[in-house]
Amino acid sequence: MSLIVQKFGGTSVKDAQRIRKVASIVTEKYRAGNDVVAVVSAQGDTTDNLIAKAAEITDNPTKREMDMLLSSGEQISASLLAMCLQHMGYPAISLTGWQAGFLTSSAHTSARIRRVMPDRIRKELDQKKIVVVCGFQGISRYDDITTLGRGGSDTSAVAIAAAMHADLCQIYTDVEGVFTADPRYVHGARKLSEISYDEMLELATLGAQVLNNRSVEMAKKYNIELEVLSSYHSVPGTIVKEKVRMEKMLISGVAKDTDVARLSIQCVPDRPGTVFKLFSKLASKNINVDVILQSVGRGGTKDIAFTVARDKGELALKICERFSELIGAGEVDYDDNIAKVSIVGAGMESHAGVAAKMFEALYNRQINIRMISTSEIKVSVIIDKGDADRAVSAIHDMFFPEED
Amino acid sequence: MSLIVQKFGGTSVKDAQRIRKVASIVTEKYRAGNDVVAVVSAQGDTTDNLIAKAAEITDNPTKREMDMLLSSGEQISASLLAMCLQHMGYPAISLTGWQAGFLTSSAHTSARIRRVMPDRIRKELDQKKIVVVCGFQGISRYDDITTLGRGGSDTSAVAIAAAMHADLCQIYTDVEGVFTADPRYVHGARKLSEISYDEMLELATLGAQVLNNRSVEMAKKYNIELEVLSSYHSVPGTIVKEKVRMEKMLISGVAKDTDVARLSIQCVPDRPGTVFKLFSKLASKNINVDVILQSVGRGGTKDIAFTVARDKGELALKICERFSELIGAGEVDYDDNIAKVSIVGAGMESHAGVAAKMFEALYNRQINIRMISTSEIKVSVIIDKGDADRAVSAIHDMFFPEED
Repeated sequence: MSLIVQKFGGTSVKDAQRIRKVASIVTEKYRAGNDVVAVVSAQGDTTDNLIAKAAEITDNPTKREMDMLLSSGEQISASLLAMCLQHMGYPAISLTGWQAGFLTSSAHTSARIRRVMPDRIRKELDQKKIVVVCGFQGISRYDDITTLGRGGSDTSAVAIAAAMHADLCQIYTDVEGVFTADPRYVHGARKLSEISYDEMLELATLGAQVLNNRSVEMAKKYNIELEVLSSYHSVPGTIVKEKVRMEKMLISGVAKDTDVARLSIQCVPDRPGTVFKLFSKLASKNINVDVILQSVGRGGTKDIAFTVARDKGELALKICERFSELIGAGEVDYDDNIAKVSIVGAGMESHAGVAAKMFEALYNRQINIRMISTSEIKVSVIIDKGDADRAVSAIHDMFFPEED
Repeated sequence: MSLIVQKFGGTSVKDAQRIRKVASIVTEKYRAGNDVVAVVSAQGDTTDNLIAKAAEITDNPTKREMDMLLSSGEQISASLLAMCLQHMGYPAISLTGWQAGFLTSSAHTSARIRRVMPDRIRKELDQKKIVVVCGFQGISRYDDITTLGRGGSDTSAVAIAAAMHADLCQIYTDVEGVFTADPRYVHGARKLSEISYDEMLELATLGAQVLNNRSVEMAKKYNIELEVLSSYHSVPGTIVKEKVRMEKMLISGVAKDTDVARLSIQCVPDRPGTVFKLFSKLASKNINVDVILQSVGRGGTKDIAFTVARDKGELALKICERFSELIGAGEVDYDDNIAKVSIVGAGMESHAGVAAKMFEALYNRQINIRMISTSEIKVSVIIDKGDADRAVSAIHDMFFPEED
């Protein structure tokens, strides 16, 4: 007998019909003799509807009250799934975040799970119940309801799996697994049967929306085997784990991210600590800096360029302008008509020439590279936004030539 | 400085505009230097919408999961009101039933409040916050979310007022107070400035939907002064308290209840204990018996007739038929084409002839009385349903003659 944690996203529980489908997935594992914990998100549009309700009241709701408001969403979907399971004749119970023992930080709307106390879940499992848990939410040390932020239900599922030493954590979603590129746009994109945590992390950071990053980090930390699979079609998904067998593939995927903005500051005085000051100022405002390019200093100054998430672009621009004025640097330039295209693959580490092959693919299509960033298992390039789709196809074709 | 508990029903918080109105009522008391606790119901149709969602899944949801589902409704309205208050510049916080310390029995969907532990509310009030509390809900000893059943938010408000020794408990609703008869139907119905707990209890039982009965019982027990008033119009409402000043009025109201069914069993053997057995059987099925008529025994048998709430009629009929068969009584008759019309008034106790005056009013309109029941402050008659509205008007005109 195994303990299996299954997570179902908002589209998977969006209406009565989908909930019945989810119930059939859950009970299949239960009938096979497993303990099953099902973690659910809010139904389809519920979260957006609740946000709209708040917007009618105020354009600046406090985060504490937003958490109170939004956490009602999973309470609805969890109770409906439990009812459905009971209707089918299975013992089931739904639990809110606090009932399920999710203790979090007090950072409302983006709380971090500090600890899961799964006593109640364990008690219900011991009574042979299917336990339906509200994802995305927990409780702070002040007994206030918190949420983990969007995508947080993945993390809820992994956290339960870790706390209870589950044998498997399945993330059910509306795609069939992790693909070598976005199958909606890239002809010939293939589903991976396995991918490593690190590759998955890079892919997630780079714009592949399959799994929430914090959930992968947590799975890696506690060595929880994840399976990403579809709640629509009963086909094997993608297993995410520490070591994957090499499938003669150098890279596991190509990803694009168009929500990027590039900032550059000219003529920054070449003194120790200047760049550090700028980046710590940005960090203090919760702005993550991604690809960084620093020119070789000449004439006692250097140019600095970097990318940030586009929704942080405006704030970053203000900070840069103030910074430039303060230290007597030159003009600040802003451009969000760009895209980041990346390849990810653990195979890179042991194979030279992967980056060169990527650049070759871009050169063949006459796509200009504006910035480059590499890690051990990733190469990212910044290009014009208009070139993004062509670039992804070109790179994918180069690394995954059409099979006969 | 006083502590005021204010309760707002579902129509009072049904949309953003109404929530803003409620916020203005709340802040008026707060600005005057009072501590304010606002208890809210779910928004307008939320509860019905959630019930419809459950009905799509199963026609027989478990009560425990229904409570989980429905309690999300007040979480939404409470957080929205707190946001609105904050938007207006006031410190405010919303609390769920369990956060507000509502400990209840485990009778899901109709739990009873065992105790309110108002530590958290007190703490927030001490920080000068307006505290918005989810009505209608609490938590059982098993840490499961419970609801008090429909109308339970009134009880929530009174329970807080009792636990915190509030100076006043205001029940805001969509009517302006308690009237001598339903003002929608009875021309000349007048708003009472005061009414006693006992009169209010009788009126509530008799079909006046203004206040939930359990809340009045609790207010009487803990001597909490209630005020029933409108969240639409800023006019004084009706005060409910122990002793009211006599306004030269014999009775305080006329009420009608058409959700009544009458059962009669003929030829019941006239032995001690027979009636007791029948009524305890009915009680064990949660059927409240109201007006009872027992004929004088003749030939060793008697006839028994009584009324029950109409939605319990069918079940009561089955029980009576089985009972009749068991003890060898005669035919069981069922009739739900009837109405109960009642007058209520503490003034009755000291004035003879009140019942006679009521009967006279009915006689003048040729309305036939089928059953009569009296208590110290109430007279009820069972008549044909078709006569109900005429009867209420006739009685009202008799006791409250049109003023010049």
